[in-house]
Amino acid sequence: MTEKLQKTAITPATHTAPPAKFSHGVKKGNILQVAGQVGFGPAVPGQAPAPVGPGLREQTLQTLRNVQSVLEEGGASWEDVVMVRIYLTDTGHFAELNEIYNEFFADLKEVPAARTTVYVGLPAGLLIEIDALAVLG
Amino acid sequence: MTEKLQKTAITPATHTAPPAKFSHGVKKGNILQVAGQVGFGPAVPGQAPAPVGPGLREQTLQTLRNVQSVLEEGGASWEDVVMVRIYLTDTGHFAELNEIYNEFFADLKEVPAARTTVYVGLPAGLLIEIDALAVLG
Amino acid sequence: MTEKLQKTAITPATHTAPPAKFSHGVKKGNILQVAGQVGFGPAVPGQAPAPVGPGLREQTLQTLRNVQSVLEEGGASWEDVVMVRIYLTDTGHFAELNEIYNEFFADLKEVPAARTTVYVGLPAGLLIEIDALAVLG
Repeated sequence: MTEKLQKTAITPATHTAPPAKFSHGVKKGNILQVAGQVGFGPAVPGQAPAPVGPGLREQTLQTLRNVQSVLEEGGASWEDVVMVRIYLTDTGHFAELNEIYNEFFADLKEVPAARTTVYVGLPAGLLIEIDALAVLG
Repeated sequence: MTEKLQKTAITPATHTAPPAKFSHGVKKGNILQVAGQVGFGPAVPGQAPAPVGPGLREQTLQTLRNVQSVLEEGGASWEDVVMVRIYLTDTGHFAELNEIYNEFFADLKEVPAARTTVYVGLPAGLLIEIDALAVLG
Repeated sequence: MTEKLQKTAITPATHTAPPAKFSHGVKKGNILQVAGQVGFGPAVPGQAPAPVGPGLREQTLQTLRNVQSVLEEGGASWEDVVMVRIYLTDTGHFAELNEIYNEFFADLKEVPAARTTVYVGLPAGLLIEIDALAVLG
């Protein structure tokens, strides 16, 4: 650690501004952390962000795409991700989540990331939130 | 970072296959991430995984053993763990969890990991889920 | 990695002893992990820890100060933090949390950390819990 590591914010053009002083993604050294993403569609100037709909499938795919945008903006990909944290609102969604997840990652070349899935409360209208930790290099 | 870091999946022989495209553990560089583990007993071919029972004690100990299997399969130990995330389903379980946790870690040689404990929903029959982050070297 | 990395526990003087065998913070290599902090006021010998009150504002600020104590005791600062995990108990608290968060971080010099906010159960009296991951150097 002879030179100071730079801390960089990652802000994909498709993303709405975070609702508070946090970054959609941060890179420092070989660590890239993606903030909790939800199923908001691409940002539209002057419009409040809203989740795509109507169901778990659409929201999950959009959420995964939003995580991916942060990874790519940070020069990374799903291949670099070591941990995915999934927050669902309904235990009844687990089987469908896994189907969607497997489809999404069908072409993954590296071994898949570790994952934890838990069931929490989320703001009204949101069915899923996902964050991810990547190790680069 | 002159050479490409390898990303390795960790799959203990005792573990059932993950229910989706994720790994029980992943190692990249000096980071080892253990996926959310629950109190499933050792895998039995042809049988669906089921939690050991009947209570918090048995599930917690089995969950900790499952985390440990991943650590050991990845060439690590609890001494390397910097963070343990515990997901309980009942705030009334906190005191008993701590008793069990202290017993389990009675012989830890290094300083204990940091920990966060929160109360969430889990699939029916599960009382606890635990994941862990280790820094190797 | 020719020399063994040291794992160090971080225990601010202001903190009550953890209720189990875990550390308020742990540093290993260039990773510093802060355990889940809550809004307990500074430790008073012989007294059980209790959250400051009465509202979200007081608890949130105290929780952030407690995270900061661990960071500082570990030779780090908010500038080094790459991820903040916030556990609230009430989705109705999101807007106020963000106000408080923005005030607290008004003078941050580096880009802000990534963040995930979810809604969980916490022990009685606690409205918020926060942990943080820092990358040093």
